[in-house]
Amino acid sequence: MARTLGPGQRLPSIRAFAAAMRVSPATVVEAYDRLAAEGVIRARRGSGFYVADTALPPLALAAGEPRRPRAVDPFWVSRQSLDADAATLTPGCGWLPADWMPQDALRRAVRALARSDGAVLTDYSAARGSAALRRVLQARLASLGIDTSSEQILLTSSGTQAIDLICRMLLRPGDAVLVDDPCYFNFLALLRAHQARIVGVPMTPAGPDIARFEAVLAAERPRLYITNSGLHNPTGATLSLQTAHRLLNAAAAHDMIVIEDDIYGDFEPEPSPRLAALDGLARVILIGSFSKTLSASVRSGYIAAQPDWIEPLIDLQIATGFGGPGQFAAETLAQVLTGGSYRKHIEELRSRLARARPRVAARLQRLGITPWLMPRGGFHLWCRLPEGCTAIEVARSAMEHDVVLAPGDVFSAAQSAAAMMRFNVAHCDDQRVMAALERALK
Amino acid sequence: MARTLGPGQRLPSIRAFAAAMRVSPATVVEAYDRLAAEGVIRARRGSGFYVADTALPPLALAAGEPRRPRAVDPFWVSRQSLDADAATLTPGCGWLPADWMPQDALRRAVRALARSDGAVLTDYSAARGSAALRRVLQARLASLGIDTSSEQILLTSSGTQAIDLICRMLLRPGDAVLVDDPCYFNFLALLRAHQARIVGVPMTPAGPDIARFEAVLAAERPRLYITNSGLHNPTGATLSLQTAHRLLNAAAAHDMIVIEDDIYGDFEPEPSPRLAALDGLARVILIGSFSKTLSASVRSGYIAAQPDWIEPLIDLQIATGFGGPGQFAAETLAQVLTGGSYRKHIEELRSRLARARPRVAARLQRLGITPWLMPRGGFHLWCRLPEGCTAIEVARSAMEHDVVLAPGDVFSAAQSAAAMMRFNVAHCDDQRVMAALERALK
Repeated sequence: MARTLGPGQRLPSIRAFAAAMRVSPATVVEAYDRLAAEGVIRARRGSGFYVADTALPPLALAAGEPRRPRAVDPFWVSRQSLDADAATLTPGCGWLPADWMPQDALRRAVRALARSDGAVLTDYSAARGSAALRRVLQARLASLGIDTSSEQILLTSSGTQAIDLICRMLLRPGDAVLVDDPCYFNFLALLRAHQARIVGVPMTPAGPDIARFEAVLAAERPRLYITNSGLHNPTGATLSLQTAHRLLNAAAAHDMIVIEDDIYGDFEPEPSPRLAALDGLARVILIGSFSKTLSASVRSGYIAAQPDWIEPLIDLQIATGFGGPGQFAAETLAQVLTGGSYRKHIEELRSRLARARPRVAARLQRLGITPWLMPRGGFHLWCRLPEGCTAIEVARSAMEHDVVLAPGDVFSAAQSAAAMMRFNVAHCDDQRVMAALERALK
Repeated sequence: MARTLGPGQRLPSIRAFAAAMRVSPATVVEAYDRLAAEGVIRARRGSGFYVADTALPPLALAAGEPRRPRAVDPFWVSRQSLDADAATLTPGCGWLPADWMPQDALRRAVRALARSDGAVLTDYSAARGSAALRRVLQARLASLGIDTSSEQILLTSSGTQAIDLICRMLLRPGDAVLVDDPCYFNFLALLRAHQARIVGVPMTPAGPDIARFEAVLAAERPRLYITNSGLHNPTGATLSLQTAHRLLNAAAAHDMIVIEDDIYGDFEPEPSPRLAALDGLARVILIGSFSKTLSASVRSGYIAAQPDWIEPLIDLQIATGFGGPGQFAAETLAQVLTGGSYRKHIEELRSRLARARPRVAARLQRLGITPWLMPRGGFHLWCRLPEGCTAIEVARSAMEHDVVLAPGDVFSAAQSAAAMMRFNVAHCDDQRVMAALERALK
């Protein structure tokens, strides 16, 4: 038997190889199958195994891929953050470090998943998604004063997909959609994908500038308004009860629908008014996910809305994805959320962030970078750079030192935030962040 | 301490209750947290726990929900199948029973997941999705003669979502899209969601009627053609090499793009020609998933396409879903696929189905139901009902006896399959299926 086989050559038969190596045929089968799965050899049915004709090109690591010179836009921030390698620092990203997440609770939930009924591991979900997770969400919404039935909750693959699905139901190209200025940058990317006409209203620390909001509704007749409740991304602002009330009255007067994204709600020290609670899910659609507090790897989001909207959303989700998250993901989330440790985890996150925010703000202040406000909770600081600095230039310069920043204008429909920058305090403790910033500011 | 607390009443403090019950405070905390997660009590921060003001309405079971009288369309089949309770039989569904799936391998993979690096359980994926799963896919595609680089593979949340993403990139409302007649019914639902103009070409046992195909391309200039390779759904037809060649020449002549859905490929006894292999991924985009052979609960699909298309697809997936499947799902699939047992599982599935197809066909024949062809593999039988029977009426009647059928016209853009029915042989062994059919045919 030759020791080296070239491309296209047949491998020894399982029986012959097992005899020669003095191992069981089952061991050889497993070894051959693994090599086949890796592409080193190929199985030809009824004929045996052959060395692959062409060695597969190595899978390029994201880190090794050339960074294309592209515009510093919402996708730039998302992709630099998602594809960051271990050496890259990401104070511009929108999530917490892995070791801030409830890893032990997740491991327990995954072990429980391994013991669950076989159908949980293999079957499609019901059309609305896992009943267990919807029950948890129903209780959670009730604690915020939002009464729903199981009929009114639809699980989705992610929080973003929840918004996308609603936009697909409601929008036609050219429709005006209102957003806060600044707002979460991916809202802008999403609305551009829908060919919406994006209209911004300036944010204040108590919510959107309500006089401007009312004027824009009268002038532009937007179909939809998308906002964060609880803690606003990127500013950390909190909607006041009075602004919420006027906002909903204006929406009713102009027949505008509101998507309230509750993704940062758990970071609040005390719950602030939810539009969905005030409105009773009449024209407000609440969406959310657990990507920021529990796991962004176990993907799932949700929609809570009036039943008349849930029905077409279910059909639309079947047509475009054949359902939302699998039971695999949804049952894992339900397990963690009912496991009793989630509330403690959230309280620890809040305390840890309450210490990090002033600490990082003080460091930024030393570089002349000033928070727009000190948020009640969460991990974002929306900051003004020193006079004369342009955030996009600073971000480009920091990227050369492997630091991903989130420059203000990617959050602004009107491009009115050239001097602003969003910082994630949970990713700012590494000395190299402030060093790269200091260098980039010069 | 009163034994019964009414709505709104405060529960005993953790310390007092622990002392009274002679358990540790930690035990009480956990009990309270579980009750809060279930919605029975509510936590008010800094104030304690209270009995929930309103008992939550019980989560309606899908089975108990009223079945709305709605049109027997693609959504009817999908939703009746997805929301079927344990007492309902689903010979019309498009997947295998849970106990036909590789549950042991899945459990092993889930246990491995519980031991994996914390970031796998918590972090977002790279923009293209898990490198491990893309490596497996690269090897798999190479074995079908499709050479790709890692740059050319994008993971998606499902096979359907893969097609949806491509349609979003390529289609404008009113664009003509070509499908086989019959075709997988959800293609029709998806294309309607895109407001495409759907054009059908009749299927033959060797692929689409190629003369008609060429004529329709010249007349309608479709932007896109969506088809299944390997085993066609619902007919079980296999594209011949000659048809594939002519089809691609016609596509090139009229600058039409092809989506090849390889979801049933693993069920083939011998691989048949893949359009993507002939074409070298120039104008063919290959998509697939493991929902039919491995798990529909661990959701993931993929796209293999030329690099120029992958880049905008990545951005589009970020904008509309903030990425595809989490590492949680993708690493589990990669684990099963490289675990060595997958090939054996597939061979067992093929043998089991090779026995089931003629057995079920014979039973159907006894009722006067005739397969259009006997497929080389897979679990679908596309059949003609006895003279005078209308499939939609038969399906409505069978539904009254808790049997979900898939009537022909839901698969037909031209509504030309009123006398046809698709059967899933893996769900036809229950006596009640043939009994309900016999009753419904009368």
